[in-house]
Amino acid sequence: MEYIKNIREKCPLIHFITNYVTVNDVANAALAIGASPIMTDEILDAPDMQNICNALVINTGTLNENTVASMIASGKRANELGHVVVLDPCGAGATPYRNKVIKKLMDEVKFDCIKGNISEIKALANVSSKTKGVDASEADKVTKDNLSDVFAFAKKLSNAYGAVIAITGAIDVIVYGNIAYTTDNGCKEMRAITGTGCMTAGVIAASIVANPLDKLKAVTAAIVGVGLAGEMALSYAKGTGTLHIGLIDELSNLDDLKLEAGAKIEKFEI
Amino acid sequence: MEYIKNIREKCPLIHFITNYVTVNDVANAALAIGASPIMTDEILDAPDMQNICNALVINTGTLNENTVASMIASGKRANELGHVVVLDPCGAGATPYRNKVIKKLMDEVKFDCIKGNISEIKALANVSSKTKGVDASEADKVTKDNLSDVFAFAKKLSNAYGAVIAITGAIDVIVYGNIAYTTDNGCKEMRAITGTGCMTAGVIAASIVANPLDKLKAVTAAIVGVGLAGEMALSYAKGTGTLHIGLIDELSNLDDLKLEAGAKIEKFEI
Amino acid sequence: MEYIKNIREKCPLIHFITNYVTVNDVANAALAIGASPIMTDEILDAPDMQNICNALVINTGTLNENTVASMIASGKRANELGHVVVLDPCGAGATPYRNKVIKKLMDEVKFDCIKGNISEIKALANVSSKTKGVDASEADKVTKDNLSDVFAFAKKLSNAYGAVIAITGAIDVIVYGNIAYTTDNGCKEMRAITGTGCMTAGVIAASIVANPLDKLKAVTAAIVGVGLAGEMALSYAKGTGTLHIGLIDELSNLDDLKLEAGAKIEKFEI
Repeated sequence: MEYIKNIREKCPLIHFITNYVTVNDVANAALAIGASPIMTDEILDAPDMQNICNALVINTGTLNENTVASMIASGKRANELGHVVVLDPCGAGATPYRNKVIKKLMDEVKFDCIKGNISEIKALANVSSKTKGVDASEADKVTKDNLSDVFAFAKKLSNAYGAVIAITGAIDVIVYGNIAYTTDNGCKEMRAITGTGCMTAGVIAASIVANPLDKLKAVTAAIVGVGLAGEMALSYAKGTGTLHIGLIDELSNLDDLKLEAGAKIEKFEI
Repeated sequence: MEYIKNIREKCPLIHFITNYVTVNDVANAALAIGASPIMTDEILDAPDMQNICNALVINTGTLNENTVASMIASGKRANELGHVVVLDPCGAGATPYRNKVIKKLMDEVKFDCIKGNISEIKALANVSSKTKGVDASEADKVTKDNLSDVFAFAKKLSNAYGAVIAITGAIDVIVYGNIAYTTDNGCKEMRAITGTGCMTAGVIAASIVANPLDKLKAVTAAIVGVGLAGEMALSYAKGTGTLHIGLIDELSNLDDLKLEAGAKIEKFEI
Repeated sequence: MEYIKNIREKCPLIHFITNYVTVNDVANAALAIGASPIMTDEILDAPDMQNICNALVINTGTLNENTVASMIASGKRANELGHVVVLDPCGAGATPYRNKVIKKLMDEVKFDCIKGNISEIKALANVSSKTKGVDASEADKVTKDNLSDVFAFAKKLSNAYGAVIAITGAIDVIVYGNIAYTTDNGCKEMRAITGTGCMTAGVIAASIVANPLDKLKAVTAAIVGVGLAGEMALSYAKGTGTLHIGLIDELSNLDDLKLEAGAKIEKFEI
């Protein structure tokens, strides 16, 4: 179990096409976990950036027509090169435009992992060409009572796209093939700082690059790691400002010992 | 007096088209006060975002032709839907382009509140189609000696646009109809961190959404709240970095008791 | 030796066309050192902004076709007005597009200072129209053993472009005319936070505006100042989050006494 050590040794170079709201945190979180971030979204520049990178993270938080074209072209280039590609469908379901863009991304780019909160993942399933929507009976919040429904839904999506599906929330659900992990790390206060989800996507990409033999565990380790960093920061934070900074501190100090000691994971065959 | 409680209970969803310099702070300040921020400036996406939001904040700090079109279209959509709309004419007066954009915004969109420092508000009055410029005698700095001039100027602007006019500075002046409030909260050190004004605009929007019956008091409470948060953070800050983070901490801990205890407000009939 | 005092007294107004990853830190660092930052990259707005500014900083970290046009036009306008212009060729060498843009910038705009890490400066020399590439023997890392090679290379570039060449790293090298300074301030942990280089470019611009009689010393003071701020912050930082915030704190508290006491500078005739 050397997920974090492997990231720090490999130092994956990750290309982000991500929203401008949380981009600084995304870069600092990537650095804190031992990766190296680079950002570009110009179509004349972005696809070429894959030539020197190990991974691509696409986040749909603040889209525009220029960056969408760069997302598609960079995603295709990353696929050609066999690079790790992560989709964070930030804001999926909020507008028709976002849904259209996300559908296009999922149709044209192959992702190793798709990570979002339950509403985003459900929205994404609804616009999917390869799945047939989401049952209305699936409540938005993941609870112990509806876990099996969420597993079934995530498994269908995972199989359709060949991607690890990570649904973040009070209980995180990570599904790939016939296995699901749930994790109970993190704290509700993290929702009061912007960008924890966006940062997680970068840590996931770094973790898959550095731990390629088991994508599911690599994604789970990343989500647990960010959650644990938040828990540790919460223990001394004086508000959401210091929670935010403490989260970066704790990510920069994270190691596999802490990860193993703090992880609250359950495994399910589905 | 439950301004802050009302924000935290209502949790207004606020759409920001704001500058990329301070956008992360704007989002975190909105979250800290209990609102929920969402950012988009693509013309194909932004107007639709109003359908799920309660308010729109337009900040002119970093303009470009694409986002200006989105500002206008989103502003009109917000007006149609009866949403709260706040203008922060960041950098008004600095360039002809900014002045042209701000004039266009004021001509085509109806604002509930226009907030800026005295130079920005004066510049805005100068480009206004509905007012006849600013008297040269109005000194740039608001002092106890020129308050009545500032009141008269702000009242004219408020009446012309039907908006609360908020002039921030060492003394803040907030004017609507025949009433002016001055507030003496905040500290000069806040000028040494970027984005306090931009954050304030978001807190204002949240406050108007959650306290719709008295816009003037809602705006005043927001300005006092941010000022108080800065004062409290200053008491332990070790420089402008910790002042910045402390400001977010204190916003996240703010409640109506603190607001009432710390507010330094004067009321004037004008 | 009143480099910092001069900045705080002059309060240079600096126009940045810089990447959106670190733009908030760049603004806060400029404010912390006593300058006043303003950002705009719209072609209809940016060149005019020079009319009220003292300096322009161009950073190529996140380019797009629109901002590149604004960089060129604003650079030319700054040159016409005799303003200080600093180039931070962030990411030079990473892609053909970046190299093309940087070549164009160097061909069409006159810079007072070009600052980058050794890889960026070497990449920039390779695309230069005025120099003939970089010897392969120049190792990427600046060490005590290859200093004379680095001096010779930087001197050639400095003479070709009439600019102070600042190469940042474990050992910083600053070259202009026949003089080189090396500085040994800063700490390796600063590489684990994004934006220290971008912030340094702004501090350099502020320092040249406020200390125009000796550009080489002005640049050196700026680089030492940021390095010192990082060293001081490291002494109490608990991770990369608090290092980041501490760096801004220490910049805001920096004065010439601290600068003189902490500077580790060597001078060379080359």
